[in-house]
Amino acid sequence: MFLTRSEYDRGVSTFSPEGRLFQVEYSLQAIKLGSTAIGIATSEGVILGVEKRVTSPLLESSSIEKIVEIDNHIGCAMSGLTADARSMIDHARVASLNHNLYYDEKIQVETLTQSVCDLALRFGEGVDGEERLMSRPFGVALLIAGYDDINGPQLYHADPSGTFYRYDAKAIGAGSEGAQAELNNEYHKSLTLKDAELLILKILKQVMEEKLDSNNAQLASVTKDEGFRIYSDEETGKIIQELKDQEDDDIAEAS
Amino acid sequence: MFLTRSEYDRGVSTFSPEGRLFQVEYSLQAIKLGSTAIGIATSEGVILGVEKRVTSPLLESSSIEKIVEIDNHIGCAMSGLTADARSMIDHARVASLNHNLYYDEKIQVETLTQSVCDLALRFGEGVDGEERLMSRPFGVALLIAGYDDINGPQLYHADPSGTFYRYDAKAIGAGSEGAQAELNNEYHKSLTLKDAELLILKILKQVMEEKLDSNNAQLASVTKDEGFRIYSDEETGKIIQELKDQEDDDIAEAS
Amino acid sequence: MFLTRSEYDRGVSTFSPEGRLFQVEYSLQAIKLGSTAIGIATSEGVILGVEKRVTSPLLESSSIEKIVEIDNHIGCAMSGLTADARSMIDHARVASLNHNLYYDEKIQVETLTQSVCDLALRFGEGVDGEERLMSRPFGVALLIAGYDDINGPQLYHADPSGTFYRYDAKAIGAGSEGAQAELNNEYHKSLTLKDAELLILKILKQVMEEKLDSNNAQLASVTKDEGFRIYSDEETGKIIQELKDQEDDDIAEAS
Amino acid sequence: MFLTRSEYDRGVSTFSPEGRLFQVEYSLQAIKLGSTAIGIATSEGVILGVEKRVTSPLLESSSIEKIVEIDNHIGCAMSGLTADARSMIDHARVASLNHNLYYDEKIQVETLTQSVCDLALRFGEGVDGEERLMSRPFGVALLIAGYDDINGPQLYHADPSGTFYRYDAKAIGAGSEGAQAELNNEYHKSLTLKDAELLILKILKQVMEEKLDSNNAQLASVTKDEGFRIYSDEETGKIIQELKDQEDDDIAEAS
Amino acid sequence: MFLTRSEYDRGVSTFSPEGRLFQVEYSLQAIKLGSTAIGIATSEGVILGVEKRVTSPLLESSSIEKIVEIDNHIGCAMSGLTADARSMIDHARVASLNHNLYYDEKIQVETLTQSVCDLALRFGEGVDGEERLMSRPFGVALLIAGYDDINGPQLYHADPSGTFYRYDAKAIGAGSEGAQAELNNEYHKSLTLKDAELLILKILKQVMEEKLDSNNAQLASVTKDEGFRIYSDEETGKIIQELKDQEDDDIAEAS
Amino acid sequence: MFLTRSEYDRGVSTFSPEGRLFQVEYSLQAIKLGSTAIGIATSEGVILGVEKRVTSPLLESSSIEKIVEIDNHIGCAMSGLTADARSMIDHARVASLNHNLYYDEKIQVETLTQSVCDLALRFGEGVDGEERLMSRPFGVALLIAGYDDINGPQLYHADPSGTFYRYDAKAIGAGSEGAQAELNNEYHKSLTLKDAELLILKILKQVMEEKLDSNNAQLASVTKDEGFRIYSDEETGKIIQELKDQEDDDIAEAS
Amino acid sequence: MFLTRSEYDRGVSTFSPEGRLFQVEYSLQAIKLGSTAIGIATSEGVILGVEKRVTSPLLESSSIEKIVEIDNHIGCAMSGLTADARSMIDHARVASLNHNLYYDEKIQVETLTQSVCDLALRFGEGVDGEERLMSRPFGVALLIAGYDDINGPQLYHADPSGTFYRYDAKAIGAGSEGAQAELNNEYHKSLTLKDAELLILKILKQVMEEKLDSNNAQLASVTKDEGFRIYSDEETGKIIQELKDQEDDDIAEAS
Repeated sequence: MFLTRSEYDRGVSTFSPEGRLFQVEYSLQAIKLGSTAIGIATSEGVILGVEKRVTSPLLESSSIEKIVEIDNHIGCAMSGLTADARSMIDHARVASLNHNLYYDEKIQVETLTQSVCDLALRFGEGVDGEERLMSRPFGVALLIAGYDDINGPQLYHADPSGTFYRYDAKAIGAGSEGAQAELNNEYHKSLTLKDAELLILKILKQVMEEKLDSNNAQLASVTKDEGFRIYSDEETGKIIQELKDQEDDDIAEAS
Repeated sequence: MFLTRSEYDRGVSTFSPEGRLFQVEYSLQAIKLGSTAIGIATSEGVILGVEKRVTSPLLESSSIEKIVEIDNHIGCAMSGLTADARSMIDHARVASLNHNLYYDEKIQVETLTQSVCDLALRFGEGVDGEERLMSRPFGVALLIAGYDDINGPQLYHADPSGTFYRYDAKAIGAGSEGAQAELNNEYHKSLTLKDAELLILKILKQVMEEKLDSNNAQLASVTKDEGFRIYSDEETGKIIQELKDQEDDDIAEAS
Repeated sequence: MFLTRSEYDRGVSTFSPEGRLFQVEYSLQAIKLGSTAIGIATSEGVILGVEKRVTSPLLESSSIEKIVEIDNHIGCAMSGLTADARSMIDHARVASLNHNLYYDEKIQVETLTQSVCDLALRFGEGVDGEERLMSRPFGVALLIAGYDDINGPQLYHADPSGTFYRYDAKAIGAGSEGAQAELNNEYHKSLTLKDAELLILKILKQVMEEKLDSNNAQLASVTKDEGFRIYSDEETGKIIQELKDQEDDDIAEAS
Repeated sequence: MFLTRSEYDRGVSTFSPEGRLFQVEYSLQAIKLGSTAIGIATSEGVILGVEKRVTSPLLESSSIEKIVEIDNHIGCAMSGLTADARSMIDHARVASLNHNLYYDEKIQVETLTQSVCDLALRFGEGVDGEERLMSRPFGVALLIAGYDDINGPQLYHADPSGTFYRYDAKAIGAGSEGAQAELNNEYHKSLTLKDAELLILKILKQVMEEKLDSNNAQLASVTKDEGFRIYSDEETGKIIQELKDQEDDDIAEAS
Repeated sequence: MFLTRSEYDRGVSTFSPEGRLFQVEYSLQAIKLGSTAIGIATSEGVILGVEKRVTSPLLESSSIEKIVEIDNHIGCAMSGLTADARSMIDHARVASLNHNLYYDEKIQVETLTQSVCDLALRFGEGVDGEERLMSRPFGVALLIAGYDDINGPQLYHADPSGTFYRYDAKAIGAGSEGAQAELNNEYHKSLTLKDAELLILKILKQVMEEKLDSNNAQLASVTKDEGFRIYSDEETGKIIQELKDQEDDDIAEAS
Repeated sequence: MFLTRSEYDRGVSTFSPEGRLFQVEYSLQAIKLGSTAIGIATSEGVILGVEKRVTSPLLESSSIEKIVEIDNHIGCAMSGLTADARSMIDHARVASLNHNLYYDEKIQVETLTQSVCDLALRFGEGVDGEERLMSRPFGVALLIAGYDDINGPQLYHADPSGTFYRYDAKAIGAGSEGAQAELNNEYHKSLTLKDAELLILKILKQVMEEKLDSNNAQLASVTKDEGFRIYSDEETGKIIQELKDQEDDDIAEAS
Repeated sequence: MFLTRSEYDRGVSTFSPEGRLFQVEYSLQAIKLGSTAIGIATSEGVILGVEKRVTSPLLESSSIEKIVEIDNHIGCAMSGLTADARSMIDHARVASLNHNLYYDEKIQVETLTQSVCDLALRFGEGVDGEERLMSRPFGVALLIAGYDDINGPQLYHADPSGTFYRYDAKAIGAGSEGAQAELNNEYHKSLTLKDAELLILKILKQVMEEKLDSNNAQLASVTKDEGFRIYSDEETGKIIQELKDQEDDDIAEAS
């Protein structure tokens, strides 16, 4: 008596008989097509890591921005449609700035995440007097990492449905399934920043099709003292080397 | 001569030949997919209890907000689309604040519930000069618990169709059928707050797939003296233990 | 050569080849699914009576508002979508208040009914500078009872098409067919208020699925001296008892 | 090569390949479903007569308004959707009032008719700064009767397409076909007002399903001296009696 | 590979693969269903003539306005939807008046025709700050006759597509095909006004289904000295008689 | 897997899977149905020539405007929907006037062409604060001829897609294919104005169905000294005679 | 269970079940139909080169603008719908000008590229208070070349999806596949401007259907000292000759 699901899946705001919103679910698929991003929260701070898909040898990998600063205490890694992400991040930056201006304090990481999710939920309908942005759900997911005095280092995952949760460690994008399984295995509360850097690169190495190097991977950290900081290619290169040495040692030990 | 129901069920505001609004009925299904929430009103106050679905061991359960404060004398538990709920609760908080401001008194629980339901009924059409929120029915149901001097402790159930009723005890979400049956059996007017806490956890234990612990269940209360208050994980943990002890006693007695 | 009716019945404002507006006709069906309501106009005043569907033993029947006051000389009983009714009644209350304010006199019952019907006809298109309310016909019918100095006690029936007529006695909702037949048989001009109370409860008893008690039925009256007044559960209970005694007498007599 | 007519008939403003506007034609059908109304213009004045469909013995026939005053020199009879008619008549009353206000003279009957037809043509698009009324053609036809010093007694027929013509005598509604044939036979320029009253009732008697009485028929007249006036039930009753006596005489004579 | 034409013909502004706009072409059909109208331009002035379709013996033919004055030096005859024509003519009158007001001179006939055609082209989109009129092409064609000092007597044909051309003689409406053929045969530059009057009536006589009389035909003229003038029924009657006499003579001569 | 092209060709702004915009392509077809127009740029100036389709012997060919002045140094020839062209040309005239007003210099021919093309591209969306004009692409192409001090005599071709290019010689409309081939053969840089006049008429003669005369063809020129000028019928007649003489000579010579 | 892709590909903002936006993907096809454009960034500056499709010998190739200046330090080459490009470039010019005005410094090349991409992403929805431009994705891709003091010579590729990346060398348009392969082979960091000019022409020669000459190819450069500069036909002609000589030498050497 019901139609097949395909009859309900093109209206942006149409519930199916089972109470599902297919256009939002499909926008989640856009993220599954995206490059992998991983975040790990430790007591010392949060580390974000991303895969960069360098589709041509002549493409400058520095122009692939998969990790960006939102404010000096908050940054994010993204997966999905890059152009959509730019809108969300512009919105986030303005939200952070405004908070600072009105309340003379840094915006809390959760408050900022909520603001981004409100935008995602109400896509295309004008938020807070801003102009209309999109007439479809955003095709992008964010890992928002930040530090504030109340809750310390935090990692949030925000998706196109406008839902967000806090995670100890989270992976998104094409390789997220394998990566999340690995995180569940390896994560423990006493990880240091250093451990997290190595763990992220190790996992990226496993899920990426290309050979990991400082050109197609990028790291960033948020800590109390340094705030948000994207690692230079040299720093990333060194850590990749460390990872390699460690793995060689492991093999040596194993043999 | 009539088309099958499926021909009428995608227009947000289309009556079927039998006089039904299918999109609203489908939004009710979104709640049936949600986590279970239970409320019990006693003469001493109202207790709310919810299941939290912790889908990953690295997800911080405290970021799953299924019970939230609306004002210091009103709070609610929700089931359905979390992002939708945020909009309704923002609306409720503003309504409560405005009432306080204009009339210099706490908003009555029923008045607040009605305001939330007006929003639900007119989704997407601008209420009280506010901007347009949604172009589909809200996919969320609320259990609104509050205390006011005129009607004492009260529990309301508000659904996406904009309908609300007052209940002595009510369950919503995936496990609502079994939970409501249990409530109908166990509820009596002389229940104490303590009894209600234990009854809610006992029922959640029965309808949840996961093993009940202080991580995946949460309680809150509204009383005349304390107003609305969400229990800490420790408090919830203690009551779970009490429940366990009691059940052990029952088994011991039974044997 | 014509399409079947089903091809014309989803456009809110589409005439079928026979000149019918199906969406309005379907909204009338929403009322046929509603609880039964009955009104009787006598020379002493008007009595309204409604069935309340108490779907759960823990549902507080007082929160099922099927009879509401519009002004102190006008009230109404409703059948259909409860949330829709709230909009119409809010509109009616404002209309009554404004009339009082501008003309320093009570609004006539017919004028108020017409105002409600204008809202119903133009659903969703903004009436008298008010904001847009609905994008579909209202799924509710009203029995409006009132008293004014010019026309005395009056009973009007207003439906989703925006049509209204004055009746001596009228039934709406799921049981309306049987109830109206009974009214046609039993109504006479010399009925007293007392007679009307008993007649309404007698008819409700016949058409309701549940056993009639003060919990699932409600009465109200409009008279010159008392204006609009909803009966307390006690009063209703007493009249139900009277009805029962009378019926017992009838049976006794009959035997 | 062309589609069947049914492919063009749902768009409110779509021409069919033959140059027809089906939605407007269908709205004319709504009138064919309506009660019969008849108008006759004589040199002494215009008489309007209508059938009232009293669908229930408890329905107060006085609340069925099929003849209404527009100004003290103009009135109209209607057939079709009653609620739609109310909008048109409100518009007509305002137009008449405004004319009086601006030009300090009574509006001519033709001018008023044209104003009503402009509304009908442009349904739903805002006329003279007024708000949007309808998103479909009006489902009502009017017989507008009036008296002005320039053209004396006049009868106009206005239909949903916005077309109007002046008639000596015209019938609309379910019984219009038979009634118009009778008018064509019986009308002559020297009819008195009295003759017109009797002729209208005689024709209504023929086309109505119910037995004609003062409860289900109504008359009104417009004359130079009295302006527009709706007959009381007593007056109508007397004329019905006269008609009966006359017919009895005819039968007596015939036998 | 292309769809049949019927797939392109309902969008008001959709080109078919061959570059045609079907809705505009269909509106031209509405004119083919209309009554016949004829115009002839002579060196002395322009004559317009129309058929009136008197569908009922009780319909006052004077209320069928198929020829109307636009200004005292311009008038027009129409064929198609009468109600649509009213809008165009109102627009034309205002355009003429405004021109007079701004430039203190009579509007030229071509300028006025162009203004009417701009309205036709942009139907429904607001012209010169006026409100929105129609959401479909106008279903009416006009023969605009006028006199101005620069170009003397002129006859223009304006159609729903917004195209206009100047003609020596032109016929529109149901009988236009036969009438235009006759005009092509009979027209010559040295026709007098008198000749034109007789020629138009002679052609109308041929193409009309009814017998030509002063009730169902109407003439008008525009000349330098008299401006635009509609002939009284008496004048038209006399010319019809002349035509009859002439034809009798012709027959007499022929026999 | 793809639909046939016909599924993409009705949306005004829908790309087909191959990246084509069919509605714009179809509007180009409207031009293929239009009368032929030809332009030739020489070092002395530009000549435009058009075919006029005189569909009735009573149609005044002077009212067929296929060549119009835009400013005294720019004019254009058109092919396609005449009514559409009027809008574009009004826009062009205002653009030229405004340029003159703001910068106190004549608008350059390319700047003016670009302004017309911007209108074509953004049809229906309001340009430079002007009101909305069309809800479909314009169905007209223009040959814009002009002279300015910077670039001398210039000929531009502007089409409904908003694309424009400068040409030495260009033909549009129904006969454009044959005409363009002829132009490609005959055009050389040293053509005089005289040569261009004769060449255009010679080509029109070949592609027109009617016999070429001063009634159904028209010429215009733009030169430094005279600006834009449309030839009188006499001038055109003389050149047609010259062409005839020349051809007779050629035949004489050839024989 | 899913529909074929063709069911999702016409809504401008509809996600397919796999999370793809087909209308945006189809607009990318419009570029695949366009003429080839190539850019190469060297340490001395950036060289842009384009193919011009001269479809008629009488078309002035200088009016085919495939390379345009945005500001004196930025220019771009385009492929796709020319008329669409004009809108984007107007936007870019204004953005550059405004930046200069507000900040008294030259806009950075990346900032400008981002501004163009924001326009592309939000097509048709009004950006920065500007009016609505398009109701579909832009069908054009740009190679933006510029020089600024911070990042030196830069080359960006911006596409209809609003995505942009920096490249050392990039080809777009019909011949892009072969051209990019060649660029990947031939590009190295030490290329001089001269080398880049020759390489671009060499590649264009390979991918163009026409024989390369100064009429159907165009070059431009951006350097620190000269800013953006389009080469004259003579300069391009000389480099084509150099390329020819070089190739002759190669052949000579090879033989």
